[in-house]
Amino acid sequence: MQKSILLITTGGTIASRETPDGLVPEMDAADLLAFAPALARHYQIHTLELMNLDSSNIQAEEWLIIARTVAAELPKYDGIVITHGTDTMAYTASALSFLLHDVKKPVVLTGSQMPIDAMLTDARNNLYTAFAAVEYGIAGISVAFDRHIIRGCRAVKVRTMGFEAFESINAPYLAEVFADGLHSYVPAAVPTDGPCVQLRDGLCNEVFLLKLIPGTNPRVFDMICAMGYRGVVIETFGAGGMHFLRRNLLENLARLTGRGVAVVACSQCLYEASNLSIYEVGTRLLECGVIAANDMTTEAAVTKLMWALGQTQDPEEIKRIFFTNYCGEITL
Amino acid sequence: MQKSILLITTGGTIASRETPDGLVPEMDAADLLAFAPALARHYQIHTLELMNLDSSNIQAEEWLIIARTVAAELPKYDGIVITHGTDTMAYTASALSFLLHDVKKPVVLTGSQMPIDAMLTDARNNLYTAFAAVEYGIAGISVAFDRHIIRGCRAVKVRTMGFEAFESINAPYLAEVFADGLHSYVPAAVPTDGPCVQLRDGLCNEVFLLKLIPGTNPRVFDMICAMGYRGVVIETFGAGGMHFLRRNLLENLARLTGRGVAVVACSQCLYEASNLSIYEVGTRLLECGVIAANDMTTEAAVTKLMWALGQTQDPEEIKRIFFTNYCGEITL
Repeated sequence: MQKSILLITTGGTIASRETPDGLVPEMDAADLLAFAPALARHYQIHTLELMNLDSSNIQAEEWLIIARTVAAELPKYDGIVITHGTDTMAYTASALSFLLHDVKKPVVLTGSQMPIDAMLTDARNNLYTAFAAVEYGIAGISVAFDRHIIRGCRAVKVRTMGFEAFESINAPYLAEVFADGLHSYVPAAVPTDGPCVQLRDGLCNEVFLLKLIPGTNPRVFDMICAMGYRGVVIETFGAGGMHFLRRNLLENLARLTGRGVAVVACSQCLYEASNLSIYEVGTRLLECGVIAANDMTTEAAVTKLMWALGQTQDPEEIKRIFFTNYCGEITL
Repeated sequence: MQKSILLITTGGTIASRETPDGLVPEMDAADLLAFAPALARHYQIHTLELMNLDSSNIQAEEWLIIARTVAAELPKYDGIVITHGTDTMAYTASALSFLLHDVKKPVVLTGSQMPIDAMLTDARNNLYTAFAAVEYGIAGISVAFDRHIIRGCRAVKVRTMGFEAFESINAPYLAEVFADGLHSYVPAAVPTDGPCVQLRDGLCNEVFLLKLIPGTNPRVFDMICAMGYRGVVIETFGAGGMHFLRRNLLENLARLTGRGVAVVACSQCLYEASNLSIYEVGTRLLECGVIAANDMTTEAAVTKLMWALGQTQDPEEIKRIFFTNYCGEITL
């Protein structure tokens, strides 16, 4: 029997047309499906046009709209495919991973590096891969791109132009497309009579991302506090380094955590985990109450902090949330 | 005839010992050489202990000390090897690439992921590779790591623990070590009677790096201005995206450039170039006077901006400097 799949469109390059101002998302779901005719032969497709935005403009407000829509619609279908611009897709995939819990059916984000009407486009293949991920029952939030299915909270956009735009960071692929079909490395979703998704609403926008450079002025932490931020994610050097000679970041950072701002430390290295227990400076960060992101991506750390601060004001509860693995986002 | 090579030590994990506070750089050059005895058989080695720091504490002041030392010492030797912590080595290598021009002999930075006294250490191999790079005449500033020689301004630390810690971003390796020796992909340095390096001193510390996240508050640009920053490097989404709906980053950014702050846009994607001429938002950034970093690494963009602002206050001259390819840091 054909799978019944909901296609939610949000805009992005995949739905863009050339205009005098550059590429602008203008196509609707019917336009997209017209360029990928094999889909209608294989699946029973329903469509929902949620927004039509360049993903650089997709922010927390849109994440909430998408999450609430998925929570409402998922019970009616075998799975959902969401088309989305690539620029912030990893952030959206991570945010949805925290807003939606116990996702027992596939919710697959995809998009493309070229508009779907371009001859050399990757859009058709990415759409086919995303729908295949639903067909094969890859449950949870994922990103389908360049014949790979990536766990949503592990996706990072690493290339501006190449078709292999997303990588699965510190985690294996969930599935890959080969000439004999989709090879899945996770158990297929099992039909359930119970709820297939749980919405846990609430996001706090007052989170700042600070990527350190040598010489970063410690007063930046005071400014972050003065601007009313409730959380900071710091991309430290290597496994957790920051300077404390001449410009003492630790001192001002301790003031920040002392005032109740939640601080999470991750690495500016793309691959592998940060570890605050190896070097002296890391130990001192832990003493300041800084939360270690371990092997989380920056995108996951930022959206998890936004979500945690949307659930509670209690610093101990924020810590407990960070050291809970909700969807494969962290190795503990 | 044996090459005469100066080993400059600056600290880092390579020179670290286990202490109750974690790893601390304590070894001197003689200690390092004692663990890599093959070096003394192959080269005539001189040593200079410049500092002994965790590289998280190496900042612009140290870059100037290292650059001035290299400029003074390079004429006396066939080349220089600099040991350095890995955490900020890519920043130091990029900074030296702008502080030192017309470098006609090898200046090779190296370090390691484990201390040189650890059984499984990568330190010995990295030292041997760095000295081999001098022997084979790989001129200019480079990074030797895991049997690869990377152009200094193209190096990025991408792994926190793996031995292949550095990648050459958007540029091929300069050389690689194989079982039959070092394969060099660049012409060997030619001995010269003229000057072998030109010091172009001057760095401005007032540069901020802003890595965008969805929803970044546009008031951040006002704060950057209020804090007296003279330059900003923005890690945009994808090829050059930033939000302008609901929270209009463009408006506050235009105020920043209007006040004479130099703004450079690069990508938060690790690989491939940003391109501000594809999407509408990029075109508007260019209209605001934002400088496109093209395929430069963030490390190169930040240090080039610090160096450019150390040379001039004139916005047009900053732009001219950015669109000059000094050492292979940018494809124009």
